[in-house]
Amino acid sequence: MSAIPVPYSHLRSAVKAALREDLYAGDVTTAALFPQDFPAHARILAQEDLTVAGMEVARCVFTEIDSSISFNPRYTDSDVVQTGSVLLILKGSARSLLMGERVALNFLQHLSGIATLTTRFCQAVGGYTTKILDTRKTTPGLRMLEKWAVRLGGGLNHRSSLGDGILIKDNHLDLLQSRGITLTQACRTAREQGPHGLRVCVEIRSLDQVRQALEGKADVILLDNMGPLLVRQAAAMVKGHAVLEVSGGVTLENVREMASAGADFISIGALTHSAPAVDINMEFFIPPNPKQKTPPRAA
Amino acid sequence: MSAIPVPYSHLRSAVKAALREDLYAGDVTTAALFPQDFPAHARILAQEDLTVAGMEVARCVFTEIDSSISFNPRYTDSDVVQTGSVLLILKGSARSLLMGERVALNFLQHLSGIATLTTRFCQAVGGYTTKILDTRKTTPGLRMLEKWAVRLGGGLNHRSSLGDGILIKDNHLDLLQSRGITLTQACRTAREQGPHGLRVCVEIRSLDQVRQALEGKADVILLDNMGPLLVRQAAAMVKGHAVLEVSGGVTLENVREMASAGADFISIGALTHSAPAVDINMEFFIPPNPKQKTPPRAA
Amino acid sequence: MSAIPVPYSHLRSAVKAALREDLYAGDVTTAALFPQDFPAHARILAQEDLTVAGMEVARCVFTEIDSSISFNPRYTDSDVVQTGSVLLILKGSARSLLMGERVALNFLQHLSGIATLTTRFCQAVGGYTTKILDTRKTTPGLRMLEKWAVRLGGGLNHRSSLGDGILIKDNHLDLLQSRGITLTQACRTAREQGPHGLRVCVEIRSLDQVRQALEGKADVILLDNMGPLLVRQAAAMVKGHAVLEVSGGVTLENVREMASAGADFISIGALTHSAPAVDINMEFFIPPNPKQKTPPRAA
Amino acid sequence: MSAIPVPYSHLRSAVKAALREDLYAGDVTTAALFPQDFPAHARILAQEDLTVAGMEVARCVFTEIDSSISFNPRYTDSDVVQTGSVLLILKGSARSLLMGERVALNFLQHLSGIATLTTRFCQAVGGYTTKILDTRKTTPGLRMLEKWAVRLGGGLNHRSSLGDGILIKDNHLDLLQSRGITLTQACRTAREQGPHGLRVCVEIRSLDQVRQALEGKADVILLDNMGPLLVRQAAAMVKGHAVLEVSGGVTLENVREMASAGADFISIGALTHSAPAVDINMEFFIPPNPKQKTPPRAA
Amino acid sequence: MSAIPVPYSHLRSAVKAALREDLYAGDVTTAALFPQDFPAHARILAQEDLTVAGMEVARCVFTEIDSSISFNPRYTDSDVVQTGSVLLILKGSARSLLMGERVALNFLQHLSGIATLTTRFCQAVGGYTTKILDTRKTTPGLRMLEKWAVRLGGGLNHRSSLGDGILIKDNHLDLLQSRGITLTQACRTAREQGPHGLRVCVEIRSLDQVRQALEGKADVILLDNMGPLLVRQAAAMVKGHAVLEVSGGVTLENVREMASAGADFISIGALTHSAPAVDINMEFFIPPNPKQKTPPRAA
Amino acid sequence: MSAIPVPYSHLRSAVKAALREDLYAGDVTTAALFPQDFPAHARILAQEDLTVAGMEVARCVFTEIDSSISFNPRYTDSDVVQTGSVLLILKGSARSLLMGERVALNFLQHLSGIATLTTRFCQAVGGYTTKILDTRKTTPGLRMLEKWAVRLGGGLNHRSSLGDGILIKDNHLDLLQSRGITLTQACRTAREQGPHGLRVCVEIRSLDQVRQALEGKADVILLDNMGPLLVRQAAAMVKGHAVLEVSGGVTLENVREMASAGADFISIGALTHSAPAVDINMEFFIPPNPKQKTPPRAA
Repeated sequence: MSAIPVPYSHLRSAVKAALREDLYAGDVTTAALFPQDFPAHARILAQEDLTVAGMEVARCVFTEIDSSISFNPRYTDSDVVQTGSVLLILKGSARSLLMGERVALNFLQHLSGIATLTTRFCQAVGGYTTKILDTRKTTPGLRMLEKWAVRLGGGLNHRSSLGDGILIKDNHLDLLQSRGITLTQACRTAREQGPHGLRVCVEIRSLDQVRQALEGKADVILLDNMGPLLVRQAAAMVKGHAVLEVSGGVTLENVREMASAGADFISIGALTHSAPAVDINMEFFIPPNPKQKTPPRAA
Repeated sequence: MSAIPVPYSHLRSAVKAALREDLYAGDVTTAALFPQDFPAHARILAQEDLTVAGMEVARCVFTEIDSSISFNPRYTDSDVVQTGSVLLILKGSARSLLMGERVALNFLQHLSGIATLTTRFCQAVGGYTTKILDTRKTTPGLRMLEKWAVRLGGGLNHRSSLGDGILIKDNHLDLLQSRGITLTQACRTAREQGPHGLRVCVEIRSLDQVRQALEGKADVILLDNMGPLLVRQAAAMVKGHAVLEVSGGVTLENVREMASAGADFISIGALTHSAPAVDINMEFFIPPNPKQKTPPRAA
Repeated sequence: MSAIPVPYSHLRSAVKAALREDLYAGDVTTAALFPQDFPAHARILAQEDLTVAGMEVARCVFTEIDSSISFNPRYTDSDVVQTGSVLLILKGSARSLLMGERVALNFLQHLSGIATLTTRFCQAVGGYTTKILDTRKTTPGLRMLEKWAVRLGGGLNHRSSLGDGILIKDNHLDLLQSRGITLTQACRTAREQGPHGLRVCVEIRSLDQVRQALEGKADVILLDNMGPLLVRQAAAMVKGHAVLEVSGGVTLENVREMASAGADFISIGALTHSAPAVDINMEFFIPPNPKQKTPPRAA
Repeated sequence: MSAIPVPYSHLRSAVKAALREDLYAGDVTTAALFPQDFPAHARILAQEDLTVAGMEVARCVFTEIDSSISFNPRYTDSDVVQTGSVLLILKGSARSLLMGERVALNFLQHLSGIATLTTRFCQAVGGYTTKILDTRKTTPGLRMLEKWAVRLGGGLNHRSSLGDGILIKDNHLDLLQSRGITLTQACRTAREQGPHGLRVCVEIRSLDQVRQALEGKADVILLDNMGPLLVRQAAAMVKGHAVLEVSGGVTLENVREMASAGADFISIGALTHSAPAVDINMEFFIPPNPKQKTPPRAA
Repeated sequence: MSAIPVPYSHLRSAVKAALREDLYAGDVTTAALFPQDFPAHARILAQEDLTVAGMEVARCVFTEIDSSISFNPRYTDSDVVQTGSVLLILKGSARSLLMGERVALNFLQHLSGIATLTTRFCQAVGGYTTKILDTRKTTPGLRMLEKWAVRLGGGLNHRSSLGDGILIKDNHLDLLQSRGITLTQACRTAREQGPHGLRVCVEIRSLDQVRQALEGKADVILLDNMGPLLVRQAAAMVKGHAVLEVSGGVTLENVREMASAGADFISIGALTHSAPAVDINMEFFIPPNPKQKTPPRAA
Repeated sequence: MSAIPVPYSHLRSAVKAALREDLYAGDVTTAALFPQDFPAHARILAQEDLTVAGMEVARCVFTEIDSSISFNPRYTDSDVVQTGSVLLILKGSARSLLMGERVALNFLQHLSGIATLTTRFCQAVGGYTTKILDTRKTTPGLRMLEKWAVRLGGGLNHRSSLGDGILIKDNHLDLLQSRGITLTQACRTAREQGPHGLRVCVEIRSLDQVRQALEGKADVILLDNMGPLLVRQAAAMVKGHAVLEVSGGVTLENVREMASAGADFISIGALTHSAPAVDINMEFFIPPNPKQKTPPRAA
């Protein structure tokens, strides 16, 4: 039902930080070679198949540098495009376009890289109701933008911080066990002490722990690093009593098997911590003639 | 001669931003399950071979959360370690350790990922004097930390911003050419108008442009997306008159060939925009006995 | 089980903001009347019965101004104290003590005001398992500190932001209804589209809506502005199938009746938006003699 | 003569801080239930008699979230309105209106609470020239906005910080006395050492101190916690030689008596530290018909 | 009576801003030439006679860069020293000392320049009770530090902002006059409408205006750009009824004449807007022998 | 070829910082004397011959305070104007104009002071190709704006930070020498270890050092505090092999002699650390008649 809200304030502060990094002392090359009023046309192109993420960020980059730049997107965030597609057309001072090029591309390449990888995982589980989730394994400082890119790619978001989800992990359980506190008891304590609006999720490494979690009335059972066979067995135990999430060692190769085994959700750290940048570049062009201002949508 | 200076102020602000992301509303799970005074020992382990980068960042993460945590590194930044190595030992409140775990690991995994990939490229050109450089294709907000990780991995840094290097790129040249300004003229203008402490670097796509650049007395000639054969020819033309840099399409497979062809520097965007996170995790342990406080350096 | 974690980073930034407000241009009175090395002893006293909240904030205020001030608390946060109790003893430069006085008292009076009112509500439902909750009706900029004060007073926290709880309110329902979407459907959509770690809470204004919410498998049913009789009827319908929360028009007079009617949670906006400041002041004193440095704990 | 200037920069930073608190991780409920383009009309209503304060803040809240919201105030800051009055009409995306609702109301309820209480005190001294002042007992972080609300309610402002007023308080005097420095001498030192543009104010607890203050040529004499009888006597002594201010223990019940006793100014901490939030809410409505877009000004 | 309080928070933020400017991308020269553990001794010397201002700022600069630097001041702020005096001795990593050198000297030279010029003006009016004041003509961003330097040089401070002083200037009067409002009326309005803790100061350009100001009961009369003769006449009129301040066109040559003419205060914009930097430099040295760690106080 | 790019982000943050300094607590005088809707016309005038710098800063000051002010510049940055010239015409609320006056003038006077002094140095070397450079001896916090003012005055910029230039100074050489490292070796190490895009500059105090520097293949040789005769001799040695820069003790009197001696660049600290503010003021005026809205360009 819902389109995807842009996290504007995170977006603006990330753009400002990135511009500060790159333009702290101005752009000495461009200042040496071009006067302020040298006009230019540029297009930004996808150099591989990808899911678009970051168009609003790119707009913010160029607007922040020079509000007189004309910014004409040909696609919107979450579109899936093919190699050679013109993502957007820019018109303005050559100096301003050159000053914004790298920062805009860095955002587009990073966020579209995440969205593209997410789309591939979503396609891999096509036909199942299983949903693809991210994790908190994000790049420091870019979490909200990266989680937005995951949604643009078709995924959903896991916790955005330690404050908006109860998740009892193996490290918690190991420590509690050293004091004689069981997984079942931990689930009950979390239910009582934790915020009443949050579900209790617990990370599980064996079928016996699944049983304990169900006894502790956990809402979500997260199977960590278990093979498809165990996932299937756990799903049979859990069915109807809790939500089943799978995590750890999930790849494009095995994700479909996990879905078929009964996972409601599959969470994948690599979406945000290891998605390679996709190839997007900017090039100048001479507009063909006054009447036809923009090139066709896909080259 | 020089050890690698830690960019402290960038480090501290990046850590604060990352902690704000993760702990904005506290850690509800840990608060529900552990009292403040529950003591614990934890170790952080390399789960694959890697070059360490980010130990000082991890220290800053835990110190910022709880200054009473004892932080004992077993390796230092730039060390090359093997799977299973214990990178550091932590002792303190379980709550504080759990609150810092993810943020510390996010930094360690990301920065060590960059350092490790850099080390691989450096090893691949072993025996040649060729040096490996990064680019400005960095993650927005983390540029100075990522460039530091490149140095820890054995590489050197290209420009840190548009203000500390003159680099005439193909986009500049295309625009200038549309006004009848040649590459040779552009080099001369940059020399005259640009800051006198910066060398003039120019990006080249053909041997004829190499000739023009030499005529314009460019200090650094950057060959963009040229094969080893052309690099070798360019090197012969340039030798002694300028520094030769190679960029574009360089992989672990072909980097040695580029070095052998005569490149003084090879700059690689993937070092920072596509290095996958390396696998590092944290686990709690029970110290063996009062006398032997720390486990052996490699498990 | 858990002590209450202090939200350190919120605390420090709130203290810095408050000191900036008061000391932007220094303290002209104190600078005119006292040299820097004029020593003094001061005590901070409760002038009415109250629950202490903000001692760590007060410490941060004085430390930020002058790290040489000796700060000796006689009580800790969450203690319930009587009129005349000495909360803390300070020793240091008169100038520094006078510069910090107002800001420290402003925090102590405001946060202890919230904690004290919370304690009164908790006492009023003594004997029932009903828990007292705050709301998002907080003072702009102080939310995390105010919610911490609520916990110090014995209450629990509702959502800390719009991102860490699904709560379908009457305004949502009114709008959806205009499009023909029922409360039951809204609950189901929220379950499907909302983050999987969050429970679905829905605000209810009639018993018929309670039925719809149960049909939509809402996890938490929030009765808004309903009298004790209706609460009792709702409790009978809900029992075992959802958590029951009561809100709206709850006072110290009627809160016990709401608890007895079967509310699991009672959320009260006044805890944070209308708690009057409690009376706390600072006075200088002459230490009785060198051997007895601090006065007795309660005057 | 003067209208009341809005403290814009304080306003904007307070709004941004409050939005960050509430929308750090977005609005998960609204994102789950409404598409971005779901249009709505809402009105904000006074649920009790009050003095309006914060309309410009509310505008800033909604504009910051979504600049396409149409914001139509029916009253302006400092207006005194009755229960049921429609303060403003909003039109825009339902999502955006719901995201801004709580933050806008938190500001309006808090600031109008202060303005309303101030108005009551001003009305209570009606007919006298006595003026109502605030103090520095403000909510940390909101001082300038709260002092603005006091002016909107008809009061005037005391010091905005320790740098813009000389005020010798009882604590100063106690300490100085321990070194044999009298109140009269303190006044003279303050006059000599303090900034020459500031008046010397001194806090007084007895008629004898009034005499000393006059001897020290204090410009303002502040009677602290003295009953109406003593105020009257002090007024007789002071008349024509200094300004007379009264503070401490002033309530709506006794404020008129203080005015009649001769106070030029009465400063009241409760205006800012204990004014209860007034009841203001937001509700959606269906505009009656295309021609009559807004409901009548008072319901 | 009062020593001069250091504006710590302004100091720290100014130092951080200055370090960010100079060290944003590290110190490439020092990193290339020195390892981190290269030890060095340095001294900072006055190369002309001057009043010291900024020692605490310099300490903050070096501490911020490297907390292991040993910082030994030989003089303190407000000391008057002669050419060749060693102001402070530093010991630590050569790299850290070189990284802090320029920023520390920039602060010391600028602030000592202001203090030194202030001292000269104070000496020029020696024997009179006239006090030297600064103005709001300060360097943007450094106001509080510059005003502190004025105090260190022996001067006093005028308004620190438009909020802590009522000053009716010629521009105000010109505008009011166009509406038929006289200087006398303006003084009265300011008294009534302005904060009651502030004196009313008014800028005067003729003896007739002095009369009007006295009639309006102005507290401070500021003679703008009037010669000594007129100042003397004004002083005669004002004596005992108001404070007399002189401003505009005051130089080291004529300041004594202004004092002798009866000015209570003389305010001088040049103290902060045009004080030339004094000559201070840093040099490395080899400590003579282990026993005598520091060179004599004046070379 | 290039016009001079305005450093917008530095500009905006500097303006905001300066406004915060001056308007933290509002403008009490103006608020007391003028209603918000009191209209006025003002002009800003050069009171001496000067090079204009800071018009865009002034625009930002007034716009930030009140976006309805009409701002009409009569000259642009880098224009050389004569005493009495009207730099700009303002129209808007008297209150807003008065609130912005001082901050706008502080920027204009400071930056135009720098530009004017730079212009004088540039004029003094007229006819030679020698270029005038600034240094890092800038006012803390204003470096990028001051360096921009130097360009507006006709000069060029030296390093903007320690990260964008290799400059081996006497302090570096002294320390290295204590370890037996020669100037020649230092140049070579810097070339190898330093960023490959930066030239190696070395500070020289004797002709023998010039020889060593040339042997070390330094790109830029900076003669520090050497007389014209030695400069001429050094120029003869260096010619064609390196760029020659002169620094130290350069004044308007001797700068031409340095140019004639063969300096390619002359760097002058006084441009930024000791340029006196130029005299610029603001005055209100009554527009002559409706048809002629603006006074003639030069009075």
